[in-house]
Amino acid sequence: MRTISTAIVGLAVSIGLAGSVEAQSARSDIEAALVTFTKAFNAKDAAGVAAHYTEDAAILPPDSRRVDGRDKIQQFWQGAIDGGGSDLALEAVEVSESGNFAFEVGKFSLKAPGKDDNPVDQAGKYIVISKKGTDGAWQLYRDIWNADPATQQ
Amino acid sequence: MRTISTAIVGLAVSIGLAGSVEAQSARSDIEAALVTFTKAFNAKDAAGVAAHYTEDAAILPPDSRRVDGRDKIQQFWQGAIDGGGSDLALEAVEVSESGNFAFEVGKFSLKAPGKDDNPVDQAGKYIVISKKGTDGAWQLYRDIWNADPATQQ
Repeated sequence: MRTISTAIVGLAVSIGLAGSVEAQSARSDIEAALVTFTKAFNAKDAAGVAAHYTEDAAILPPDSRRVDGRDKIQQFWQGAIDGGGSDLALEAVEVSESGNFAFEVGKFSLKAPGKDDNPVDQAGKYIVISKKGTDGAWQLYRDIWNADPATQQ
Repeated sequence: MRTISTAIVGLAVSIGLAGSVEAQSARSDIEAALVTFTKAFNAKDAAGVAAHYTEDAAILPPDSRRVDGRDKIQQFWQGAIDGGGSDLALEAVEVSESGNFAFEVGKFSLKAPGKDDNPVDQAGKYIVISKKGTDGAWQLYRDIWNADPATQQ
């Protein structure tokens, strides 16, 4: 009995560890992707930003229509870059993983031209659903964000 | 061999059916919850709206701070109701399920007082992450939305 109990405990520990290693992997992969996403945006590389999305991804920007497909998403980010967006920063506050999906609740900040074209700090929050490809890499599948309350300038 | 092949095909079909029945269940449960959510909102029942969220849920409203916990979420919706929001309608465009999580991309519309307090049609899009409780019921866990482009009034 002792041997069986030990084996069961061993199995439970193995399953527990496997679970947490996988969750850790999603979080570290997603955090690494945040770094390359922001680097691409801040280098004005819209194609580099778009490469983080699945081919069939969709973004849901505030005060804008839903944008479907990586090519259209690249055009959207090109527009944001051409419009003077800069200094993007992203922070994953929560990452949860379930099968081939992960969802992430986060915060962003960037500078964008305000009145008189002076750069204004903007901040907000987002939810991203990522999908794990057959190669094991996570890519953004659905992406929605909105602004925090306006701060006094 | 024929018998084994047939058995394997039968097993595959059973798994396939079980999968689609489960997905169907999440979608129909979530669509049923959309109906009761909107009924509660339109009946000015903030507690009824809040009952759709998990105790540890969070909402991320546009131009507002993140709101954590069912009690605070009830206060938020009470404020929206007291502010004159009415005629809420919700539509699930996509529902995907993975384990105890489901995510939903949808559209909303409602009326809210505009200039001169006249009701103005508003529309937007949302992503909701739902969580399946131990009782098998789905509840909203994370909820974010934003507006479509402003329409001409």
